[in-house]
Amino acid sequence: MRLKLLVEYAGTRYSGWQIQKNARTVQGEIETAIGKVSGRKDFELYGSGRTDAGVHALGQVAHLDLQTAMAADDLVARINAELPADINVLAAVKVPHRFHARHDAVARSYVYQVARRRTAFAKPYVWWVKDPLALDAMREAAAHFAGMQDFQSFTDADPGQGSTLVQLDRVQIDATDDLVLVRIEGSHFLWKMVRRMVGVLVAVGIGEMTPADVTTLLRQPSRLPARLTAPASGLFLERVFYPGERRDYPLVPVVWIPRV
Amino acid sequence: MRLKLLVEYAGTRYSGWQIQKNARTVQGEIETAIGKVSGRKDFELYGSGRTDAGVHALGQVAHLDLQTAMAADDLVARINAELPADINVLAAVKVPHRFHARHDAVARSYVYQVARRRTAFAKPYVWWVKDPLALDAMREAAAHFAGMQDFQSFTDADPGQGSTLVQLDRVQIDATDDLVLVRIEGSHFLWKMVRRMVGVLVAVGIGEMTPADVTTLLRQPSRLPARLTAPASGLFLERVFYPGERRDYPLVPVVWIPRV
Repeated sequence: MRLKLLVEYAGTRYSGWQIQKNARTVQGEIETAIGKVSGRKDFELYGSGRTDAGVHALGQVAHLDLQTAMAADDLVARINAELPADINVLAAVKVPHRFHARHDAVARSYVYQVARRRTAFAKPYVWWVKDPLALDAMREAAAHFAGMQDFQSFTDADPGQGSTLVQLDRVQIDATDDLVLVRIEGSHFLWKMVRRMVGVLVAVGIGEMTPADVTTLLRQPSRLPARLTAPASGLFLERVFYPGERRDYPLVPVVWIPRV
Repeated sequence: MRLKLLVEYAGTRYSGWQIQKNARTVQGEIETAIGKVSGRKDFELYGSGRTDAGVHALGQVAHLDLQTAMAADDLVARINAELPADINVLAAVKVPHRFHARHDAVARSYVYQVARRRTAFAKPYVWWVKDPLALDAMREAAAHFAGMQDFQSFTDADPGQGSTLVQLDRVQIDATDDLVLVRIEGSHFLWKMVRRMVGVLVAVGIGEMTPADVTTLLRQPSRLPARLTAPASGLFLERVFYPGERRDYPLVPVVWIPRV
């Protein structure tokens, strides 16, 4: 049977999602756990996409074909019992054999957590920006990213390697007390794109760039976003959407950072 | 000049607040950091009270006398630069020389975080209770703790060692999604008292005890609360109150645990 897994993980200790030799990865840990629980090795876990080293996930999706008589809930509990504490299977559901976690995904969303102050509890899950952030300017800049745009300045992809056009449906800036959240939803994402967008948005927030500069970066190739890349610690793959799924869902940060 | 410090810390890596030989403690780390910043050794940090190994704080208060020409904000930034990431001085304010962090405290509050599901992000800051929790029963039990009560069953203190009477002004149970918060405010707290109260409240929540059993435990000595002691990971010293300070303040959990 084909199973769709919903997985959350803290990426801090991992070299990303994707299995690699001589590196600890999230995919590797989950495959090992499922192997122990099922006693099988003839399966492969397909993620909706990779996450980079240190990047977290609130709702990564993956699928696999597994021969098992176990009920899905039992399977989840037993897999979790074999997993390290920072990887957690939230749900497993039986899906049709044609379901593919990556090919069928129609949209993804990311959340980036910026802390406006030092915190004793949240360091692995935020980027602490010491300078004051002008949220209005950040929101104005964010609006320039929406729609179909060329993100060549925001990725390292070889220009010959395929389109750098991406449709973004949402670039939202929220703040609760001393936590600023950037939430980006789009059809797909290029390598390092979200972290470079956040780097540029923060540069606008601290007054080093203007909202209008975003338009320039989207119009002509620039190395500036690469130099501003935000750290992996603040980034969470939030959700992966499949056809027919609702896109209005609550924004839930991982930590709360009250204003002192 | 006498300074009052407001400090948050994640207790996971520490043998509690109080300085000890051959152990890493929060007080020890802060004194070392202040020593480096001020170049002085002729000071001592007085906390409002101890926290046990593994217990966290959102707002521990301490005072010290320090000869320094630095402004308080500069001092905070420089102390934090010397501190490990899991200890954070939130504020330093000049106070009258008669101020004493422990003697002058008129009330304290604690928050205990119970997770209703496994989480990849929150393990160091919660107690994960697998069984379903009946919040109504927990609230009914909590009400029995309020007022002036004898907490002899909830501490290890020698009965000859002073009064075990404690005035509790608030025993509140809140839930947001899969996070249950127990918040307890009182004049003072006996050793291990909060963790044993939470252990009993959770026993009520999972149906192993009734709310009325709390009354029995408060009326006659029992070893049962000791056996139910909740783990240190979920416990936070929330606030320490001094004369004239307002007690109505927002309850802010450290993590959010959305329902899946």
